[in-house]
Amino acid sequence: MTDPVDLTARLVRCPSVTPEEGGALVLLAELLEGAGFDCTRVDRNGTANLFARWGQKGHVKTFGFNGHTDVVPIGNRDDWKHDPFGAEVVDGMMYGRGTTDMKSGVAAFAAAAVDFVTDTPPDGAVILAITGDEEGDATDGTVALLDWMSTEQERMSVCLVGEPTSPDTMGQMMKIGRRGSLSAWFTVTGTQGHSAYPHRALNPMPAMARLMDRLASHELDQGTDHFDASTLAIVTIDTGNPATNVIPAQTRACVNIRFNDTHTGAALSDWLRAEAAKVDAEFGTATEVTIKISGESFLTPPGELSDMVGRAVEAEIGVRPALSTTGGTSDARFVKDHCPVVEFGLVGQTMHAVDERVSVEQIDQLKAIYGRMLRDYFA
Amino acid sequence: MTDPVDLTARLVRCPSVTPEEGGALVLLAELLEGAGFDCTRVDRNGTANLFARWGQKGHVKTFGFNGHTDVVPIGNRDDWKHDPFGAEVVDGMMYGRGTTDMKSGVAAFAAAAVDFVTDTPPDGAVILAITGDEEGDATDGTVALLDWMSTEQERMSVCLVGEPTSPDTMGQMMKIGRRGSLSAWFTVTGTQGHSAYPHRALNPMPAMARLMDRLASHELDQGTDHFDASTLAIVTIDTGNPATNVIPAQTRACVNIRFNDTHTGAALSDWLRAEAAKVDAEFGTATEVTIKISGESFLTPPGELSDMVGRAVEAEIGVRPALSTTGGTSDARFVKDHCPVVEFGLVGQTMHAVDERVSVEQIDQLKAIYGRMLRDYFA
Repeated sequence: MTDPVDLTARLVRCPSVTPEEGGALVLLAELLEGAGFDCTRVDRNGTANLFARWGQKGHVKTFGFNGHTDVVPIGNRDDWKHDPFGAEVVDGMMYGRGTTDMKSGVAAFAAAAVDFVTDTPPDGAVILAITGDEEGDATDGTVALLDWMSTEQERMSVCLVGEPTSPDTMGQMMKIGRRGSLSAWFTVTGTQGHSAYPHRALNPMPAMARLMDRLASHELDQGTDHFDASTLAIVTIDTGNPATNVIPAQTRACVNIRFNDTHTGAALSDWLRAEAAKVDAEFGTATEVTIKISGESFLTPPGELSDMVGRAVEAEIGVRPALSTTGGTSDARFVKDHCPVVEFGLVGQTMHAVDERVSVEQIDQLKAIYGRMLRDYFA
Repeated sequence: MTDPVDLTARLVRCPSVTPEEGGALVLLAELLEGAGFDCTRVDRNGTANLFARWGQKGHVKTFGFNGHTDVVPIGNRDDWKHDPFGAEVVDGMMYGRGTTDMKSGVAAFAAAAVDFVTDTPPDGAVILAITGDEEGDATDGTVALLDWMSTEQERMSVCLVGEPTSPDTMGQMMKIGRRGSLSAWFTVTGTQGHSAYPHRALNPMPAMARLMDRLASHELDQGTDHFDASTLAIVTIDTGNPATNVIPAQTRACVNIRFNDTHTGAALSDWLRAEAAKVDAEFGTATEVTIKISGESFLTPPGELSDMVGRAVEAEIGVRPALSTTGGTSDARFVKDHCPVVEFGLVGQTMHAVDERVSVEQIDQLKAIYGRMLRDYFA
């Protein structure tokens, strides 16, 4: 039996702040190879990633786990009461960076997978796709793993992402989709001038105010069965003009949109550009729009996979998790192009916080849940 | 006969960049005392000012001139083709900082006044109130002179401010009033949060956008017989939030209003505060408003004084100046509380510019115009 609490502690002691590997993937590869997994390091641009498969390549029944061993920086060391890389256990709580997000999750699914293939070798395959770049730009992490898998014709039939998913209590929530995220930067240009002679200038500020008011007032949608309503947040407006007698030539703003599956990044981009063009036509300004789509929204419709996850959680801890699409982005946004994906993990409360911590009891519960999923899937 | 061109040149050679006196007022006091003027230095907080009176104190017929000898900085010396303090004359143009704004104006009225009281001593008095702080904060300049005059029971019956008043050609325009000016700073406060969870935050940005849109869209008035329509310019909006996943707690903006005599600074302040309160009620934000009134609008209604100025200009150069209230602020905004005031001077085109310059012919014309005004007034 592989102890997921001990494995979590050993992983926490690897200082794997993005983009450092810190020994975490080496440790996991050792463990997995010992259990018969075929391990490949899929490193890209200095980012370390680990692909591990037990069983036959390309098997139609391949259960995948996805997670990351990199962690966010600790911030100010003096603010921590516990060693951020010590994995100290006090009163049933293990402390350290990554205890929640998400070395415990990786330890739980690695331990569950090792025990499962050892105890009851299935007719099928189990894949672990573990990245060292989820907290950073995520450009050379799970994306690199999926690119490599595609080239190598490695496929998962379904995938469980082990990120923390419950806001408050164990088993409360699984994620069956995520909203998309998009940021747009607007630069409105007019003509500089003297505040006393506005007719000789073209002030970009009224155009910016009108544009921002329109964007913020627009109802994107009212939500769907599985998604909250999409939101638009004006993040900043900046001009940097200190002189009250000067009309500035230019002003900049940024908005961030979190959107559900009634939108696409492309359609929202078209809308944003059209609104800017409308304001330009009204005011005579020239607005440049730059858009970055961080991720499209997606939904794994409730069904076989989410039912299986729900059953496993309920059987182990007596709670049926709600199907949710709330929260920020995760690597599930990449996995969804590969196969059906659901996220289930621990309570996320102390993610990224000082004195990040996890209940050791819940690590054991999580391993048990993941083990039950595997048995259920291959039954 | 006092040569106003030579006097301008000697004043230009005094490096009187605000708040430096630079020898300019000393030079003028010498000249005026030589012609029988009673001179008093009215310095306040390190700012030099000169009060000069010819004739009886408190005479009911007292003609006043107001002007300044301080100049704005030269900027980058290398950008100048001519010595900024050299008063070089090339092709009929004298070059240097203050040649237009307004050492030529001061030289013209000082020369006119000296010659007038010498040649045809009037039954009345002539006052010259000349400050060394018009281009700066103007708190210790003409205001200090007027305060002192009030204490000393020195009074002008009418006053001519010798600032440049014509945009393009000599004699084009006199100023019979000025718009008021007011700046307002708005700080809108909400509650910081994550862009993915806007319902847990209170974004101050939409409130700011709405407020600015409303202010900029509002028609303050349509102008009057003597004034252009009042204007409101959004000068800046600043937030300084670099993170697209953060909703900021606070944002700031500044607007500048130039207003005619259908408004007062106080009434406009009330309006601005009411608009901010309205937006706060709509959005739940808290907006702090700070207002600085730089000057109220004022009008010297067309009449005796403006007629006299118009007649003098027309008699000397064959052009009848238009009565205008356009442009920025000047010390006339202080003088108007003391007596009827009109501004007339040279062409202002190169004010504050590199290679500031003045037509020497027009300095002579200006002296002649001021002299004719004096003869007319005391006739």
